Amino acid sequence: MTTQPSDVEIAQAHKLQPISLIAAKAGIPQEALIAYGTTKAKVDITKLGPSEGQGKLILVTGVSPTPAGEGKSTVLIGLTDALDRLGKKAIVALREPSQGPVMGIKGGAAGGGYSQIVPMEDINLHFTGDFHAITAATNTLAALVDNHIHQGNHLNIDPRRVTWQRCEDVNDRSLRKVVTGLGGPAHGVPAETGFTITAASEIMAILCLATSLQDLKRRLGDITIGYTFDQEPVTARDLEADGALTALMRDAINPNLVQTLGGVPAFVHGGPFANIAHGCNSLLATTTALQFGDYVLSEAGFGADLGGEKFLDIKARFGHLDVAGAVVVVTIRSQKYNGGVAKQDLDVEDLDALRAGLGNLERHVENLRQFGLSPVVALNLFPSDTADERELMSEWADFFGVPLAEVRVFGEGGEGALELAELVLEHLDGDSHPLYDPAKGVEASIEKIATSIYRAARVEYGAKAKKDLAYIKANGWDTLPVVISKTQYSFSDDPHELGAPSGHVLHVRELLPRTGAGFIVALTGDVMTMPGLPKKPTANAIDVNENGNITGLF
Amino acid sequence: MTTQPSDVEIAQAHKLQPISLIAAKAGIPQEALIAYGTTKAKVDITKLGPSEGQGKLILVTGVSPTPAGEGKSTVLIGLTDALDRLGKKAIVALREPSQGPVMGIKGGAAGGGYSQIVPMEDINLHFTGDFHAITAATNTLAALVDNHIHQGNHLNIDPRRVTWQRCEDVNDRSLRKVVTGLGGPAHGVPAETGFTITAASEIMAILCLATSLQDLKRRLGDITIGYTFDQEPVTARDLEADGALTALMRDAINPNLVQTLGGVPAFVHGGPFANIAHGCNSLLATTTALQFGDYVLSEAGFGADLGGEKFLDIKARFGHLDVAGAVVVVTIRSQKYNGGVAKQDLDVEDLDALRAGLGNLERHVENLRQFGLSPVVALNLFPSDTADERELMSEWADFFGVPLAEVRVFGEGGEGALELAELVLEHLDGDSHPLYDPAKGVEASIEKIATSIYRAARVEYGAKAKKDLAYIKANGWDTLPVVISKTQYSFSDDPHELGAPSGHVLHVRELLPRTGAGFIVALTGDVMTMPGLPKKPTANAIDVNENGNITGLF
Repeated sequence: MTTQPSDVEIAQAHKLQPISLIAAKAGIPQEALIAYGTTKAKVDITKLGPSEGQGKLILVTGVSPTPAGEGKSTVLIGLTDALDRLGKKAIVALREPSQGPVMGIKGGAAGGGYSQIVPMEDINLHFTGDFHAITAATNTLAALVDNHIHQGNHLNIDPRRVTWQRCEDVNDRSLRKVVTGLGGPAHGVPAETGFTITAASEIMAILCLATSLQDLKRRLGDITIGYTFDQEPVTARDLEADGALTALMRDAINPNLVQTLGGVPAFVHGGPFANIAHGCNSLLATTTALQFGDYVLSEAGFGADLGGEKFLDIKARFGHLDVAGAVVVVTIRSQKYNGGVAKQDLDVEDLDALRAGLGNLERHVENLRQFGLSPVVALNLFPSDTADERELMSEWADFFGVPLAEVRVFGEGGEGALELAELVLEHLDGDSHPLYDPAKGVEASIEKIATSIYRAARVEYGAKAKKDLAYIKANGWDTLPVVISKTQYSFSDDPHELGAPSGHVLHVRELLPRTGAGFIVALTGDVMTMPGLPKKPTANAIDVNENGNITGLF
Repeated sequence: MTTQPSDVEIAQAHKLQPISLIAAKAGIPQEALIAYGTTKAKVDITKLGPSEGQGKLILVTGVSPTPAGEGKSTVLIGLTDALDRLGKKAIVALREPSQGPVMGIKGGAAGGGYSQIVPMEDINLHFTGDFHAITAATNTLAALVDNHIHQGNHLNIDPRRVTWQRCEDVNDRSLRKVVTGLGGPAHGVPAETGFTITAASEIMAILCLATSLQDLKRRLGDITIGYTFDQEPVTARDLEADGALTALMRDAINPNLVQTLGGVPAFVHGGPFANIAHGCNSLLATTTALQFGDYVLSEAGFGADLGGEKFLDIKARFGHLDVAGAVVVVTIRSQKYNGGVAKQDLDVEDLDALRAGLGNLERHVENLRQFGLSPVVALNLFPSDTADERELMSEWADFFGVPLAEVRVFGEGGEGALELAELVLEHLDGDSHPLYDPAKGVEASIEKIATSIYRAARVEYGAKAKKDLAYIKANGWDTLPVVISKTQYSFSDDPHELGAPSGHVLHVRELLPRTGAGFIVALTGDVMTMPGLPKKPTANAIDVNENGNITGLF
């Protein structure tokens, strides 16, 4: 693997097919194609006829993430290419990478090695401008809020209770906490506020859950920007901002079409954070893929407890999606890490640690079965994996009664996932359903997720959360589904409790109504919604060569 | 004119030609075309062969702007359509509108009535993402600066002397003065800073002056972000940021191709402020237009004293452009305003005020002659103009010895500018040259512009400006050309001195080195680099209808 060219070198050496051919392969009518150059396009959803077929939706999720990385997107892309090699009409539905982290630390969300979506530089930088549209809409709304207060404030907005924040698709820790409106009366009203990264903005979540332009507009209007002095919620509609925000998002709502290195159509659209939001690509990308593909592979962020749960309880619920199958991506390294091995020692064989850590995978498989799914395990091989470790994985799968296939997608692309593809095709009998009924109220929903998925003994609400709960009930938001924002490293709210902890207490610190997106976010710890750059950012290595090609990206 | 449909209605009712046809009409090879949908494209400058022909460049400028508006872009577009009707191969080169003001007050920079560039909604919102790329590059650099300080600051940057500001393409007065980096040591170093609108950022100026991707990279590296504790300048190159910024700008550097309502090719690319920067569309858009067109019409912001002077002294100098002709756009209303009539009384005939105000037009014509040009006056007619007023204009032109043609482009498009087109074709014998020699130093350059163009008696430097001048000399920047930032409403630095004042004192308050763009900005007053929204913003009226069409834009 170390002798293999870098991701960007592989991607740039690859001869891409014209996007019109990729669309034709999918059966997407050419008149619905809005080209962005020759290798990217948006698909105009208003130009698509009614959906005739209905593909099978396969959720690709993973174990609790570790610092070593499990390669979930890479497996998803390799698996799709493998299905294509088996003569199946498969389509990818993935999240768009955020540009901020691309400048910070190695790694995007466009796969890796010989399992990538291309053109990777474009996908990782600007792409078709969706993130920029969200940034513009978010910051236009912020300007309209502050301008309203500055110009007389007839809506009686309490400037101290404006909850709407600006955003940027840049990793900029200095923007986490800022004071705006300084400089005197001509320059607005001073306010203590902050910026999130664009992926964490509510408009990103809205884009990813909207079913049409009119639904998008309704959701944008439903955004709560803050509260009046009488503590009544104020919406974007109250500010007459919904039309303008919709105009700014009119192009962004159309899903983006690109291709895998195997020449398979890939919808790459929307990229909400998996903690503060639901962490899946746009619903429209998924439904459009289902209209044209027989098999649609879509990913959920983080582990199956966080991203998987939200895929099923938020996205699938809102979109009335039936999930036919699930794949849990695991590495031997990740389970050794969950078994107590330090990151720098993961190259050394350790069967005891692997055995101990496998409780994590086991728990994720069990959890997915609670949603009516029969998951398949994809063991993403690394060069350091030993024969005995692989044998132990195989024994565990037999014992636990879960189908498992080894994959070598990073070095081999689709060729390295043929066995997995066969296995997945045999396990598409899922009859998926959400876990809880939101009608029972926010507390009941949180209780259900906490006890069934996280295996907590109980839920405790902090003082702020209790106050938030009262607001939520008073404003009629108590039957919205819940997005629990929790560390991705543990089933508990303590990132150091690895493996498969149970009997713990889930601490809910704060509840954030996201009335535009249509869910309540339950914060269980300090959530970082604006990353920072590391000491040696990737940006220092990125360059453009004499041919105009981008280098040093990964 | 009041019975005419709105700009957006005219634009949406118009059947656009495919952009590939527009490119073919211009003679641009199809392989150089990067389509953005079917009606917009970027032209890949690396795919263009060497320039064979060399078109004639015509500068469209105006009198001192008034609140009533003179319609400079509208006349430019109508004039180009008229040249096309006369069988001439004409191409437009215009600035891109800024999205922020579109949300604030009526009016973009895409012309008006039957003289527009289309698709106007796209051009006014997001377009091909150039402004967003500039915003991303600007804010990435800010994040890299703050991160460097936060992570140990080995370059010894004085946090109090960081001059680099963030930007947004939103009218947001609350961002003019902000404090960032609050919240404790994990969240960066507190700093007093601000945001400008994207059009006012140095990277916008750089984009508009770059001659190639490598030249762009060099200029981005040359940006001064602030000073060390020893007061030495620190560049983006010192931060190893130039490669990443170039990668973010790689697509933005290619000029955008759209069309006029008359089906004439139009390059619309870059939109720097005309006070804090040089106020012209990109040099690459102009040179690409000159490669394919026999007549290229390009605009400079504000009046001929500000935009026109910068076009000739900055853009034409940097790009070695020969300007063949010039058009000064004037309205009867603007000259009455300059003659002392209040805005609300401009509909009333007032020959005395018109006669008094005409000194303003006279001065602009005289000024352009100093650059070796023989300008033509375009009288943009309004319904309120009376026969006697028009007769007076005609008499004035005869007396003063300047060719003048009336135009009716708003209501008639190209048909309304045929006479002007004939007149312009007769006056393309310009032998243009810059006004001053930067080698003589910043003070001499300012002196020359102030006395020759503004007709000031002398220049006075404030305490801050004197200090800046010393820095500029110490750092070897004294031979850079000068961008004077001055009120656009008067030849003097007092916006209330209308007409053609002379003998005044020009007060230089501050000098800003823009080492990436390659000029020194001389501030002569408070310059607003971040606009605010009005009490009733346009955003409140903007909407998207059932067909997905944007309404209420203008």
